[in-house]
Amino acid sequence: MNGGRLERRKAQTRAALLDAARSLLTSRDPAGVSIQEITEAADVGFGSFYNHFPSKQELFDLAVATVAAEHRALIDAATAGLTDPAEVLAVAVRVTGRFPRTHVDLARIIDRVGVRYPSAYPIDALRHARDVGRLCYDDDEVAFACVNGSLLGVLHHSLDTGEPEVDRAADRLAVSLLRLFGLVDGDARKVVGRPLPIDV
Amino acid sequence: MNGGRLERRKAQTRAALLDAARSLLTSRDPAGVSIQEITEAADVGFGSFYNHFPSKQELFDLAVATVAAEHRALIDAATAGLTDPAEVLAVAVRVTGRFPRTHVDLARIIDRVGVRYPSAYPIDALRHARDVGRLCYDDDEVAFACVNGSLLGVLHHSLDTGEPEVDRAADRLAVSLLRLFGLVDGDARKVVGRPLPIDV
Repeated sequence: MNGGRLERRKAQTRAALLDAARSLLTSRDPAGVSIQEITEAADVGFGSFYNHFPSKQELFDLAVATVAAEHRALIDAATAGLTDPAEVLAVAVRVTGRFPRTHVDLARIIDRVGVRYPSAYPIDALRHARDVGRLCYDDDEVAFACVNGSLLGVLHHSLDTGEPEVDRAADRLAVSLLRLFGLVDGDARKVVGRPLPIDV
Repeated sequence: MNGGRLERRKAQTRAALLDAARSLLTSRDPAGVSIQEITEAADVGFGSFYNHFPSKQELFDLAVATVAAEHRALIDAATAGLTDPAEVLAVAVRVTGRFPRTHVDLARIIDRVGVRYPSAYPIDALRHARDVGRLCYDDDEVAFACVNGSLLGVLHHSLDTGEPEVDRAADRLAVSLLRLFGLVDGDARKVVGRPLPIDV
């Protein structure tokens, strides 16, 4: 019994530290945050930090990984059942590009983490789209950097704008990327004109 | 005479602080650098810092601005005399994308500053290219975010690769962006196949 309670308490402390790190990431640069600030935000004792994480860096890395997993789940849900690989890319971009309106904390964290943020659109999906001849590009890594980098640029811009500009910018980015991958303008606009899953 | 010597010394201290900040930016996150580290790296007294800069942030902002000005001068030199606005964009991208090989300190600083780094390719050049009908896009800010964001993504990737991958990635990004802006693949490859200014 006592052991079970201790385990639960340990898990709660760890979860509180992760929540605090994630919350701090929406507004602060991790390099400028002290461990004391984290433990105060988590409402746990300063000394308990190192029982759970070997360093501040590992805590923030794990917090970013939980954000990326949540992001990935949103994209997976939004693209489930789509058969056009161009539309899978477009929907991933349109959903993520809407985060400044729909999931502002995620948008702020992605903006802060920058190019080190793990993409929620899988590189396997990009390769598949090329292998079946729907998208065309020369180099996996350059193509992937274009998708993720331009998304970062548009998220950063959209965090400063209000709706309906956010949705419009997301859709224009999706059209732009489909053209980058060889679709003609009319086809790109048709793919991006399809309705998004209703719950986004 | 004494006044002149004082002025010179003041200018030297300021320059040393700027150099130190720029050098620290190639390897460190500014939020994690103390003012004492900066004054030690600059080899000036700790107390002199606030005679020159109101805050660490202002020093680092100015250091980034000097990097961006140097970058801008490189692009201006490389694109001087070009008459095809598509080539101006391509050369700006090809020159910047080569920084991990040609100007690795600039590449590291751009990678660190991320989306907040001021673009060396002027938005006016993008607008001009559209106004004369050479590039096509819907929205200035989205188009600009695509150029700068995808460049960031490719720079980040290329910092981990060796030549000749760096040059190839830069050129592939330029082709990709020209397609994004409506050029057909053959035209995009022709523009990017033109020789770069010899001194890059």
